[in-house]
Amino acid sequence: MPPSSPPEGSLFGGVFGRGRVAAEVGDRAFLQAMLDAEAALARASAKAGLVPAEAAEAIAAACQAGRFDPAELGELAAAAGNPVVPLVRQLAERLPPEAAGHVHQGATSQDVLDTAAVLVARRALAPLLDDLGGAADACAGLAAAHRDTLMAGRTLLQQAVPVTFGLRAAGWLVGLDETRRRLAQVDRDELAVQLGGAAGTLAAFGDRGLVVLGDLAAELDLAEPTVPWHAVRVRPATLASALGTCAGVLAKLARDVALLAQTEVAEVREGGGPGRGGSSAMPHKRNPVAAVAVAACAARVPGLVATVLGAMAQEHERAVGGWHAEWEPQRDLLRLVGSAAAWSRELLEGLEVDPARMRANLDATGGLPMAEAAVAALAGPLGGRRARELVDGAARRAAAGGRPLRDTLLEAPEVADQLGPAGVEAALDPARYLGSAQALIDRALAAHG
Amino acid sequence: MPPSSPPEGSLFGGVFGRGRVAAEVGDRAFLQAMLDAEAALARASAKAGLVPAEAAEAIAAACQAGRFDPAELGELAAAAGNPVVPLVRQLAERLPPEAAGHVHQGATSQDVLDTAAVLVARRALAPLLDDLGGAADACAGLAAAHRDTLMAGRTLLQQAVPVTFGLRAAGWLVGLDETRRRLAQVDRDELAVQLGGAAGTLAAFGDRGLVVLGDLAAELDLAEPTVPWHAVRVRPATLASALGTCAGVLAKLARDVALLAQTEVAEVREGGGPGRGGSSAMPHKRNPVAAVAVAACAARVPGLVATVLGAMAQEHERAVGGWHAEWEPQRDLLRLVGSAAAWSRELLEGLEVDPARMRANLDATGGLPMAEAAVAALAGPLGGRRARELVDGAARRAAAGGRPLRDTLLEAPEVADQLGPAGVEAALDPARYLGSAQALIDRALAAHG
Amino acid sequence: MPPSSPPEGSLFGGVFGRGRVAAEVGDRAFLQAMLDAEAALARASAKAGLVPAEAAEAIAAACQAGRFDPAELGELAAAAGNPVVPLVRQLAERLPPEAAGHVHQGATSQDVLDTAAVLVARRALAPLLDDLGGAADACAGLAAAHRDTLMAGRTLLQQAVPVTFGLRAAGWLVGLDETRRRLAQVDRDELAVQLGGAAGTLAAFGDRGLVVLGDLAAELDLAEPTVPWHAVRVRPATLASALGTCAGVLAKLARDVALLAQTEVAEVREGGGPGRGGSSAMPHKRNPVAAVAVAACAARVPGLVATVLGAMAQEHERAVGGWHAEWEPQRDLLRLVGSAAAWSRELLEGLEVDPARMRANLDATGGLPMAEAAVAALAGPLGGRRARELVDGAARRAAAGGRPLRDTLLEAPEVADQLGPAGVEAALDPARYLGSAQALIDRALAAHG
Amino acid sequence: MPPSSPPEGSLFGGVFGRGRVAAEVGDRAFLQAMLDAEAALARASAKAGLVPAEAAEAIAAACQAGRFDPAELGELAAAAGNPVVPLVRQLAERLPPEAAGHVHQGATSQDVLDTAAVLVARRALAPLLDDLGGAADACAGLAAAHRDTLMAGRTLLQQAVPVTFGLRAAGWLVGLDETRRRLAQVDRDELAVQLGGAAGTLAAFGDRGLVVLGDLAAELDLAEPTVPWHAVRVRPATLASALGTCAGVLAKLARDVALLAQTEVAEVREGGGPGRGGSSAMPHKRNPVAAVAVAACAARVPGLVATVLGAMAQEHERAVGGWHAEWEPQRDLLRLVGSAAAWSRELLEGLEVDPARMRANLDATGGLPMAEAAVAALAGPLGGRRARELVDGAARRAAAGGRPLRDTLLEAPEVADQLGPAGVEAALDPARYLGSAQALIDRALAAHG
Repeated sequence: MPPSSPPEGSLFGGVFGRGRVAAEVGDRAFLQAMLDAEAALARASAKAGLVPAEAAEAIAAACQAGRFDPAELGELAAAAGNPVVPLVRQLAERLPPEAAGHVHQGATSQDVLDTAAVLVARRALAPLLDDLGGAADACAGLAAAHRDTLMAGRTLLQQAVPVTFGLRAAGWLVGLDETRRRLAQVDRDELAVQLGGAAGTLAAFGDRGLVVLGDLAAELDLAEPTVPWHAVRVRPATLASALGTCAGVLAKLARDVALLAQTEVAEVREGGGPGRGGSSAMPHKRNPVAAVAVAACAARVPGLVATVLGAMAQEHERAVGGWHAEWEPQRDLLRLVGSAAAWSRELLEGLEVDPARMRANLDATGGLPMAEAAVAALAGPLGGRRARELVDGAARRAAAGGRPLRDTLLEAPEVADQLGPAGVEAALDPARYLGSAQALIDRALAAHG
Repeated sequence: MPPSSPPEGSLFGGVFGRGRVAAEVGDRAFLQAMLDAEAALARASAKAGLVPAEAAEAIAAACQAGRFDPAELGELAAAAGNPVVPLVRQLAERLPPEAAGHVHQGATSQDVLDTAAVLVARRALAPLLDDLGGAADACAGLAAAHRDTLMAGRTLLQQAVPVTFGLRAAGWLVGLDETRRRLAQVDRDELAVQLGGAAGTLAAFGDRGLVVLGDLAAELDLAEPTVPWHAVRVRPATLASALGTCAGVLAKLARDVALLAQTEVAEVREGGGPGRGGSSAMPHKRNPVAAVAVAACAARVPGLVATVLGAMAQEHERAVGGWHAEWEPQRDLLRLVGSAAAWSRELLEGLEVDPARMRANLDATGGLPMAEAAVAALAGPLGGRRARELVDGAARRAAAGGRPLRDTLLEAPEVADQLGPAGVEAALDPARYLGSAQALIDRALAAHG
Repeated sequence: MPPSSPPEGSLFGGVFGRGRVAAEVGDRAFLQAMLDAEAALARASAKAGLVPAEAAEAIAAACQAGRFDPAELGELAAAAGNPVVPLVRQLAERLPPEAAGHVHQGATSQDVLDTAAVLVARRALAPLLDDLGGAADACAGLAAAHRDTLMAGRTLLQQAVPVTFGLRAAGWLVGLDETRRRLAQVDRDELAVQLGGAAGTLAAFGDRGLVVLGDLAAELDLAEPTVPWHAVRVRPATLASALGTCAGVLAKLARDVALLAQTEVAEVREGGGPGRGGSSAMPHKRNPVAAVAVAACAARVPGLVATVLGAMAQEHERAVGGWHAEWEPQRDLLRLVGSAAAWSRELLEGLEVDPARMRANLDATGGLPMAEAAVAALAGPLGGRRARELVDGAARRAAAGGRPLRDTLLEAPEVADQLGPAGVEAALDPARYLGSAQALIDRALAAHG
Repeated sequence: MPPSSPPEGSLFGGVFGRGRVAAEVGDRAFLQAMLDAEAALARASAKAGLVPAEAAEAIAAACQAGRFDPAELGELAAAAGNPVVPLVRQLAERLPPEAAGHVHQGATSQDVLDTAAVLVARRALAPLLDDLGGAADACAGLAAAHRDTLMAGRTLLQQAVPVTFGLRAAGWLVGLDETRRRLAQVDRDELAVQLGGAAGTLAAFGDRGLVVLGDLAAELDLAEPTVPWHAVRVRPATLASALGTCAGVLAKLARDVALLAQTEVAEVREGGGPGRGGSSAMPHKRNPVAAVAVAACAARVPGLVATVLGAMAQEHERAVGGWHAEWEPQRDLLRLVGSAAAWSRELLEGLEVDPARMRANLDATGGLPMAEAAVAALAGPLGGRRARELVDGAARRAAAGGRPLRDTLLEAPEVADQLGPAGVEAALDPARYLGSAQALIDRALAAHG
């Protein structure tokens, strides 16, 4: 199976399940994670002397997703309200009696399902973090390569003052690094095992509850929580939030790319593989498919984060629906952000940049984006207010008449006197009005490390 | 396949894919709907003289979902950004050359995908409306059967004044009927065919565009829009909103049931099928599984509605991601609300009501919920203010001492003088303090029809 | 006070409180609506013989918002959890004893607050519907005036095939009319009085409950509900949803305007009043301030709709927070959508369109948007497949070499033979490839009426 | 001003603006923060030699919110799209010419507004963190005081197995501490100054941009960002997310309290101040007003977080609406979570716990919550499967007949033989089936520190 294909492919998987994350959050992967939780529980209980070692090993050996049918379990789940109950029953049925009685011993369904969800998150975050890292590396490459590539800075979609494309890429880079760092922190600190038994006291483990809890965490290489978190859902909310922020960063860069790739702007375009971005009806088009896909994935994320946050008001020791409401959205969040990260990496690694067009667009309005620079150049000799008045007038005349700002500026005697043609030329050179752009790019690259 | 089983079952399908809607929104159903759109387009184009009739029939005959692989199409969709492009290619490949060239003629991918989504909605709404109707009928039955069943009305989870369980059910009934009526209206008026061609002009149909549009709508029994709605997304938003409101009504009744089923309240419980509501760890429990499932489904809906609404800001003639972002959420909305409706119907049809416990709970505080009624009874002879003072004092003493309000009221000479024991008894009879409950139930039943 | 100024102005009111709606949803307006509900209740109760007529008139006369302090009531609200309790107390204190005892008689706080919220909605919808109507009229004007103004249709922000600006405006028009019609329907049918008493039975009205309910509705010119809707919140959800859809339509047209106003596109720009759209730092800019404001208002709406929908799971006869959670969001929804409508109307009424620039942009790629039309022209003589191959090749050479499609097409002998220079010219004339654009504009205008 | 009163009080401020946060996010506070940003910018520029020191001091001296009218600025903001433009103009007008020209020098509106929003967050987080700390301390007190107070653990609102109220409080405590720690981290690390000038290059500061940036951060005691974050909105999203998670924790404990305070459960009730929780219509009620208010505040948070996350897709160097859409929601988030924290602290500090009622409720079903414990006790002698069968049967008979589990268990000869009456009694003693509850409470208290 190629890396871009979800193992449980779906009709819209090309857009929403790209990359390697989808495979980690599918039904089969989730089922395996539930079985891994049961196996680890059996082993931890054996270590604590609560389950015979052979029974634990027999249980662990039977915990293979291939032996179970997710759809059947899903259907059976209707009776109890979750798929752990039928899974435990089927698992026990596949074991000799002396092991069967020890399956799931001391635990409740939520312990297994929550721990499985955490394992799924851990396994999904690995490729996600990798793709974010690849995307950030590509951004760093763009920032370095285009540190001097002049481009119009644009505010409210209007050309403002010059920037460089490298600075834009540096902004993306910092966002990617910040969100990647946070996700890595969540991966390390917040992915904790859940074990509490029927109501969080670990009562069915007698006086060995905390020992089993600790060993279970060690067994699965997950964090050990201070107390069971079955109904205090800081951890799922924290993961969802970090994914939400990540989606926002990816959405920002995708929107920038789609805007820069517009026919009328044409400053970048996505690298094309065979057939990439073609239109069935319009042979000449090169659609920004990756940017579209990232935008589509990301647009779905805030609503899912809100769902997870809204589900936190969970009743007593187990919620009436709030807990259940997390199951699919958390997987959707991983899948969508994973897909957006994979698409973003492709997009950034293959991005074709057209510095000449960037320069042409910057010059297309005859120097208007340099008006602020002209004010600055004239403010010394003439004072800020007068400088502003003169430049405002020249800019208005330039815009109205479609003439270069250079010419309308020189029409003003004060300007001609103070700066002369060469001085105006210099004042209007965008390469001289980049402020701290180079230093900011350096800071971004240094922080990327 | 049993009605409760989604055809493309999933691990959590028992909770989120119950009933007959899930089958209508799965990948295979969506694929068939895309093919139905292509087939109808070919036929409408043939009727308009744009495609040879035999070619149209050949196309229509090939439009069978079973011949295509949704997962493969999904993967191929990555190149163009949607699965219609590879579907059209594969469909053409399966046809003789004289028909192949007419596949998808004049249309754009969005025409087919949008029309398919609308067909899916139509097909999903049928069982959804049916389950809502069944739930409403069950509510009507409860309202009629329990019109005199006294129950504590509760505000902010505190007992307030008496109601009847029939009145509560009548409230649910009105909500169900209102939301069902709205969904039926949306089904009838808002589910329109989409056909515009590359940018909404129908240019590739020459001067026959409107004819094809009209015939396509007729062919699929969908509404004909005033203009193509490819980028003005009132219709998807309207459907999503109506589903969102429906989910809220179901969530309300499910929460009520879960609260009434609490161990300490125990006024209702869900009917149990074999194993229904059992707990793996606690043999005595009878969990309100249906109410939990409804709550879980409904909790996920507002975020999805927000996603669809947020996606409406679609660029020019086709959006950068906003359109794509609708695809899965719209299906999720149908699936979740469909599942919630199926669960609700089961819940209401099987609900076990315990009138004796309702009465016992109402009496458990010694008549405090009748304090307002006592004020009313004393206001005539003593004036509202004095009546209120006397009852407030008696209620406080009753609450503090755990004594019946009857007794503390009679301790007040004014009360004893005015009403006497029999008068107090009458004033505190909850069955006499139900106001317009009966008439309101009648109105709800009449509106249900 | 000028129409654009909220009476209780705020720091961000220029963006989010423009137009006449903000004045209708402010604290003072809401307070007056609560008092109007109390006054109407007194009168309806008098009509039903439950309150002396003079007492009712005394109450009604005292129901003037100017006599109360919203902030003080807000602070006092903390004790009971809503501002009706202190309002009723203060109102009674301002009345002679014989009237004071009849204030709020038979009602509960929610009756007054819900009815007030409905009155506020009614009063806010009037200017909102008016601004939507004005915006639609302006759209109709643009659709008619620019029915022949050629513009590039754009999909995924890439030029696709030609449209006219009139057709784009017709699309906005249909969206505006659809959402306006729905809001008017909600205004007429869904804005119902709420009256139920402590738990929805109207018990404190004795056997006169339904009479008072009917008279209260008549008094306030609001709909009469089948049953009290204190805990079944279809009505608030329906209003919120309709506002959400409206916001989406406005967001769509605002985004289109912002994109068309880009420096590099420059096909439209917003009309400027004095100082409108100026930038503090860049004298030459003309920012699309109205489009930005609409986008900002609309971006906040989906989350608020989700909040109202999510609050529907209200417990028993009055919710633990779900009801309260509606109060401010419903007002925010009216204010934001009202502001967006006012901004949109201004934007559309003042929009400056540049047909020459539209044409220039359409021609800038040397005819590539006409590739589909060329395929159509060649499909007759050469067959669809061959026509497509030839045009694809010519389009690729045109795009690569920056040459006109006309020239690269004529390089192909088959094209030259079949069409000749004049035929190619004709095939590439965008004015001849508009399909049903005119008829669609007519349909939109006819539906607008 | 009393702590509970928002300085710019509002009709619903008692519920949504309680505590000290509302005062920090009102219009006047925001205006002062904008002026603080301007003052600090002037001083930092002076330090960098770009502005005369006297001018900077004159500017700083004029930066007092009391001299400006927020509502007027808000109205003037409509022209430019933000209130900074008119504020800068008015500020300059209040200064002598030699200082006026240096106001806002080098900065853009967004620099000032973003930095102000960060200052507002800093100032709002102080009381918010304090209230969260107070709430956590109160929780710690409850956990310690009630470590042995037996209570029914409840899952899906059904009694499950025993817990202690101290363990429940320990769960809340851990959640409060986790969310408080995260918010403190965000306060320290993520609240960074924004300064970039027109498009993020700091060009108008010449080669002194980074020096001014650093000094501005130092001046305001805010973090210094790697690069300007004007269009990469990780920081606002991170703050919003942390607030969202905090709201969820508060919502959880408030819902628990409201459920425990139900008339039929009555295990806790809120402490009452004068008039607190009274009902206008029902004199006997003691409403859980604080829990209701927390629930109401928290219910509004997820939608606002989604809005902030959804606004992250900001165009180029300044967004078309996405930036503006953050302004009010971020303030609403602080206000709502601040109010929820203040209410929660009050609630927890005043909570009245009824251990006797907790025990009575636990015993009310005749020992059924101890069924799991009975299985455990019998599993040793009889094996898990047989033990389960026996207890299941006994539990069913107990539930059906309303008899104590003790009696139905002893009817089984195997049980009577193995355990005898004393053994059964011991097995059914909830105090002996608390597992690791004590140790978990200790862990929570230790982590609280």
